[in-house]
Amino acid sequence: MNINVNDTRNLTMLIDFYELTMSSGYFANGMGEKEAVFDMFFRKIPDDGGFAIAAGLEQLIVYLKNIRFDRQDIEYLRSKGAFSEEFLDYLAHFKFSCDVWSVPEGTPIFPNEPIVVVRGPVIQAQMIETMVLLTINHQSLVATKANRMVRAAQGRSIMEFGSRRAQGYDAAILGARAAFIGGCDATACAIVDRDYAVPAVGTMAHSWVQAFDSEYEAFKKYAEIYPDSCTLLVDTYNVLHSGVPNAIRVFDEVLAPRGIRPKGIRIDSGDIAYLSKRARVMLDEAGYPDVGIVASNSLDEYLIRDLLLQGAQITSFGVGENLITSKSTPVFGGVYKLAAIESGGRLVPKIKVSESIEKITVPDFKKLYRFYSRENGKAMADYITTFDETVDDSRPLEIFDPIATWKRKVISDFYAKELLVPIFQKGECVYDCPSLRQIQAYCKEQVDHLWDEVTRFENPHRYYVDISPKLWGIKNDLLREAGYQK
Amino acid sequence: MNINVNDTRNLTMLIDFYELTMSSGYFANGMGEKEAVFDMFFRKIPDDGGFAIAAGLEQLIVYLKNIRFDRQDIEYLRSKGAFSEEFLDYLAHFKFSCDVWSVPEGTPIFPNEPIVVVRGPVIQAQMIETMVLLTINHQSLVATKANRMVRAAQGRSIMEFGSRRAQGYDAAILGARAAFIGGCDATACAIVDRDYAVPAVGTMAHSWVQAFDSEYEAFKKYAEIYPDSCTLLVDTYNVLHSGVPNAIRVFDEVLAPRGIRPKGIRIDSGDIAYLSKRARVMLDEAGYPDVGIVASNSLDEYLIRDLLLQGAQITSFGVGENLITSKSTPVFGGVYKLAAIESGGRLVPKIKVSESIEKITVPDFKKLYRFYSRENGKAMADYITTFDETVDDSRPLEIFDPIATWKRKVISDFYAKELLVPIFQKGECVYDCPSLRQIQAYCKEQVDHLWDEVTRFENPHRYYVDISPKLWGIKNDLLREAGYQK
Repeated sequence: MNINVNDTRNLTMLIDFYELTMSSGYFANGMGEKEAVFDMFFRKIPDDGGFAIAAGLEQLIVYLKNIRFDRQDIEYLRSKGAFSEEFLDYLAHFKFSCDVWSVPEGTPIFPNEPIVVVRGPVIQAQMIETMVLLTINHQSLVATKANRMVRAAQGRSIMEFGSRRAQGYDAAILGARAAFIGGCDATACAIVDRDYAVPAVGTMAHSWVQAFDSEYEAFKKYAEIYPDSCTLLVDTYNVLHSGVPNAIRVFDEVLAPRGIRPKGIRIDSGDIAYLSKRARVMLDEAGYPDVGIVASNSLDEYLIRDLLLQGAQITSFGVGENLITSKSTPVFGGVYKLAAIESGGRLVPKIKVSESIEKITVPDFKKLYRFYSRENGKAMADYITTFDETVDDSRPLEIFDPIATWKRKVISDFYAKELLVPIFQKGECVYDCPSLRQIQAYCKEQVDHLWDEVTRFENPHRYYVDISPKLWGIKNDLLREAGYQK
Repeated sequence: MNINVNDTRNLTMLIDFYELTMSSGYFANGMGEKEAVFDMFFRKIPDDGGFAIAAGLEQLIVYLKNIRFDRQDIEYLRSKGAFSEEFLDYLAHFKFSCDVWSVPEGTPIFPNEPIVVVRGPVIQAQMIETMVLLTINHQSLVATKANRMVRAAQGRSIMEFGSRRAQGYDAAILGARAAFIGGCDATACAIVDRDYAVPAVGTMAHSWVQAFDSEYEAFKKYAEIYPDSCTLLVDTYNVLHSGVPNAIRVFDEVLAPRGIRPKGIRIDSGDIAYLSKRARVMLDEAGYPDVGIVASNSLDEYLIRDLLLQGAQITSFGVGENLITSKSTPVFGGVYKLAAIESGGRLVPKIKVSESIEKITVPDFKKLYRFYSRENGKAMADYITTFDETVDDSRPLEIFDPIATWKRKVISDFYAKELLVPIFQKGECVYDCPSLRQIQAYCKEQVDHLWDEVTRFENPHRYYVDISPKLWGIKNDLLREAGYQK
């Protein structure tokens, strides 16, 4: 597992204060050890896309393994005057003992399905809410956005350049990690390379060019020092009249005599479509058809797609703020809701009712299946069941929309895969995190299982996330009960 | 200074790789010790507002005080095969020796004026770019957004509730810090209280209410445990038919006999305007006119303003994702540009030319003044000069728009205040950071110096940021030179 060895922060206190007041309340009422089940799920796909990408599990595991209330935490909490000494003593000896399931990082995920499930003493399962959400929300947001850009680039490289515009240090570092999961293949940020092995790339800023008496001199000095990784930034003064000609001159004068092929040029402003096409011609005519053109000017998936539609001659894209903040949709709205709680010796399903139908939760302790076609491997539907159900994929299965129940479909010739895998059992981690490259490859492979209708940007097909008849029955019983309560 | 004592991360390597390739290049060319001046400034105010709020300086200072390349950093850099042993040795013994000036945290700031100025060896001044931008961009973004919400709330309390939707851990923690600077008066996040003394608040989630057999029982248990800070979440089932009546019953049964006044109720869904007005009547009629109503449902400055226009009876607002990510404008686009570099024994001004007029930089080593009216204390204009100029505010001064130069104005009866204060001198910190409360108070006071025309949301007046005739001359000379270069 990749961990920044310098990062010894204890983030246990990164917790909403109400988790502590509630936990203390459960403790005071003798309810703390009652078994509860919480789900994390989300309701809306960023950018109105057809799916999202799960990410952040590795950091969630690190957090869960290291929950501890230090002496200074206890002192701080005592100073608030809201907690009993017994509760503070409980916290001082806190030991995480929940079961946790999660979809693996890189999995395409859909609204209303459980992506993390926590089962254990209510006091514990409640207390981890903030960090479960914060960790998974953040990285899933960026992985999802990165995957959109990667798909738009149609095989061209996307490099993450966003550190300077990220929302804080972790946003830069873990955002770059998530971007790699989504399919980016490099970062501008050195610490991400050191700690997560995402290759760091970078050549020069405009200030390098400005620091010399001429652009030609700036390029020449750079090529002399970095002959093997020579990418020159050509837009400080004028791309076509100065930048590209100076770059070609330096390629000719410095690299050619040494038999070294230049890497590329970078264009960071202006009309990228036009400039890249003109630059391509100039490079080709000068004998550099193999030299790449990097574009990097406030790009997003729509601009990338549009540039390529216009025939822009770009070999790789550097993407900054639009990726690292997921600027067009900067929030991944995951929530963490109580699904069941022990009462009278058994788990009782719980529902959160809302006036908006979409906000009503799916109750009970659940499992999540994905059905793939045996014919073409495509994902056909996701299917949520109670934890004690199993799906028999050897025979046809009728599934139905849980809200528009008249929408029914019989599927056959499919195989069912459980998506939630065990991460912790009784507080012990039982999961080996794959390497980041493995996660990236898994993500790509899983996205390839989706129909084009689901992956397109415009009005993507709403992928089926259905629930079993048993679960539907439980949900409707609870809704009726809740209705009586009004 | 408030520092999280648990946070011993060495963030020196949170640096764009190109800072290192350029630094190594300057080093190899014997240019590393050349004196250079860089400015941080921004071009566009988030949300099309009339001003932004500077924040993040304290964390920038912590970073600059602690720059060090550890052995593992050097080993990592060596493994990249791009750097000479001499350069790696230089990094291993790196000692920050620049001068740094900055506007104090909480200062209203405007486009195109220097908010951080760094002067020192080009190799060093270049290398800190990523962290200068990342730190100031992030916190200025959130402080600016918070201040908008605080102004919309017209004196009512705004509480920051966004940790779970923040873009990573620092975004939650330092975002809450920045929100406090902008005028929020509490956070949901415990670690922010422990480390930055922003009061943490919080009572219960819906899960608390769900965990009991009835809403009444959930409220009763809560009131018994927290009689002195009893705020009840009333929207789990039905605000008006269940939540508020149950809350009143518990106030009557649990708190009244003990002579304790309840704190409030919280509404987290539904039509807040309608529900809060109805709840207010119910609470008043039940003898609780002093009990507050907290609203917290995807609020932003426009919704807050609109709720109050509709007469919503809300005493405080809890704001989550829209604040902590500055959702409507999640990027603060600060940039860091070379303004001057030593050549022939003197500082030579440098300009970054662009096809868009707004992107052309203001060259040279600069000072920044703010002019206040002696009559009413209002800020009249900001004024950028070269570093060797001084403003004589005892006599009238003609200022002019640096682009539309025919727009001229003679100001008189004003006093001039320098906004950039010394932070580091030759690498030594010479600045005492104020407490967070002092920064918050300073921010409020400085915003009060702005005209209403500048602080309004819709089409705010563009505040004057003008440059001295001397600086204008330097800029125009450089533009002419750059023109020749095309």
